[in-house]
Amino acid sequence: MTITSSTVRGRTELCTAIENELSGLIGKRASAATAYGPDFARLWALAGQNVLGGKFVRPLLLMETYDALHQAQEPRRRETAISIAAAIELLHYAFLLHDDVIDGDLVRRGHPNLIGSLLAEAGENARAGSGLHWAQTGGILMGDMLLAATHQSFARADLPHGLRLRLLDLLEHTINETVAGEQLDVGLGDGIIAPDLQTILVMCGYKTATYTFELPLRAAATLAGADFAVENALATAGRHLGLAFQLQDDLLSTFGDPRRHGKDPFSDLREGKETAIIAHARTTMAWPDIEPFFGRPELSVGDGEHVRRHLSDCGAEAFVQGLIEEQMQAFNNQLTSTIPASVRNVMLDLAGQLEGRQS
Amino acid sequence: MTITSSTVRGRTELCTAIENELSGLIGKRASAATAYGPDFARLWALAGQNVLGGKFVRPLLLMETYDALHQAQEPRRRETAISIAAAIELLHYAFLLHDDVIDGDLVRRGHPNLIGSLLAEAGENARAGSGLHWAQTGGILMGDMLLAATHQSFARADLPHGLRLRLLDLLEHTINETVAGEQLDVGLGDGIIAPDLQTILVMCGYKTATYTFELPLRAAATLAGADFAVENALATAGRHLGLAFQLQDDLLSTFGDPRRHGKDPFSDLREGKETAIIAHARTTMAWPDIEPFFGRPELSVGDGEHVRRHLSDCGAEAFVQGLIEEQMQAFNNQLTSTIPASVRNVMLDLAGQLEGRQS
Repeated sequence: MTITSSTVRGRTELCTAIENELSGLIGKRASAATAYGPDFARLWALAGQNVLGGKFVRPLLLMETYDALHQAQEPRRRETAISIAAAIELLHYAFLLHDDVIDGDLVRRGHPNLIGSLLAEAGENARAGSGLHWAQTGGILMGDMLLAATHQSFARADLPHGLRLRLLDLLEHTINETVAGEQLDVGLGDGIIAPDLQTILVMCGYKTATYTFELPLRAAATLAGADFAVENALATAGRHLGLAFQLQDDLLSTFGDPRRHGKDPFSDLREGKETAIIAHARTTMAWPDIEPFFGRPELSVGDGEHVRRHLSDCGAEAFVQGLIEEQMQAFNNQLTSTIPASVRNVMLDLAGQLEGRQS
Repeated sequence: MTITSSTVRGRTELCTAIENELSGLIGKRASAATAYGPDFARLWALAGQNVLGGKFVRPLLLMETYDALHQAQEPRRRETAISIAAAIELLHYAFLLHDDVIDGDLVRRGHPNLIGSLLAEAGENARAGSGLHWAQTGGILMGDMLLAATHQSFARADLPHGLRLRLLDLLEHTINETVAGEQLDVGLGDGIIAPDLQTILVMCGYKTATYTFELPLRAAATLAGADFAVENALATAGRHLGLAFQLQDDLLSTFGDPRRHGKDPFSDLREGKETAIIAHARTTMAWPDIEPFFGRPELSVGDGEHVRRHLSDCGAEAFVQGLIEEQMQAFNNQLTSTIPASVRNVMLDLAGQLEGRQS
């Protein structure tokens, strides 16, 4: 899949438009926040830095799909589409923040996240041991405000009321599924929910595919006035692709090159993360050799390499590669004539990012 | 202040209407939740029990104010008012849940809260030490869903779009102020923010007066088509009353009769809660005798009584009683002819609850 120079130019323009919209949404709130003192204003300043430093995967998918679907005879709603695209990026960041609180994470992609920054800044001001409490409280509260801001953008969308309600339905469905996915993920990690493969695959779909792929695709179709058959085919294709991406993430974390993905290569094993890789390994003869090392925070590099070799030898790596191929096959099966050719190209471009992905 | 039997009958009918609306809002979500498995459904079941067991202070204030303000020539929006009143109760419960996560609380009014229930039910299923993590995650996630549900009700309100936007503005303002108040409260407790009296009073206003009094009053005025002057006078009166209630809460926790209020009489002292009482005590000669006991989780009953005696003798109790009187004076000053007599009665009835309050 090659990306033409016109695609690149289009994407740069889109990124600028999305960035401007996000700057506006966050900027006006950051200004208003100063009336509530420096600590409150700091939350918005940090959120602004983190949101504007993102890759805009979800808003770009929405806008490229909208542009590809939009028909000349439909009312032009591009500005509204940009505002919904930006709101979806705020939703993503709200989920990330609450996920970071839940997981106790202080770092994202090698940099302190909002919580890590607040912790570092609390420094010696905080009463002994309370810096983390203060910082995680900031994460919960900022997530709440971004969740509120997402809803405000949807509720104010410049659309006929019926269409606005349709987008609000989508938002509600998305939040429910993402929350259900997050709860499953935590339940798996905490040993509350049994880690069978089916549950893990359902969890991956709910936790990320819904809001990363299904929401932007359905929102784009709604805004462009596309047929419901087109919207459904896109959403189904998106869910398969989302699951493929998630499974590939798991493979990369365990078997990928840490110099490329920049993460601790054994963090999933140390955390005891219940992935499809582990679910398969549990069903093999190799599990008794793996289990003693699984979920051990103090896992050494030597032990990590030992487990990785076992996970490969027992067939778990190949099994998950097979699952990814199945999802990609199901994805391709959706790209029939129901979906206009221009939109198929957007989807294929996205799928192309899966190939040769190293991080 | 006596409550007439017609007031009591009216309130019972209002309670039923609010309860029906809340049952509908939660019931449809609880039904949909079963598709995502028992753990997800359990969140909605517990939330339903807790929300429907509430006293509906905020929705009642909104509806009584709406009924008192509504003019015959204005469009009748009573059903919409009920839906907004119920949404405000969901917002209250969302805030309570995130507050309980932040404070590590498992009990509210002598019963397990949602987090406490999830912890008890996790029991031996949870991996060692992870039951609390699972339960608090449930608190964060359920709070997120209730915050979303609140916005959905506001966004779908059956109103002209301009009025709906006005309510959405109010909601945004309320959430920002409540979050700012919560952050101040946590910053005071964690030793990040200096505990001077002014900061503590501002914190009390933001954290509870805004969403408990100002929001229902302004929403009622907006829905009833009242003049902005009336809305502002009500909101100002409500803020003063809210602060008076909060200050009285602090007095009751420390000096009240625990057989009446049902709380650990020294919990504020054990937690090191920065109240107006403590802020005043810090400025007196008695502070060196109080400080060694303040914020000590293991405080004995004897030490607690010693501190309480000091807080009374040093004038802190009387000082806060004086602050309450000031707030009530400012409250009464707002009840001028700007506010119609029927609404003044609603406000005076509410203020009457402050007198002789034991819990």
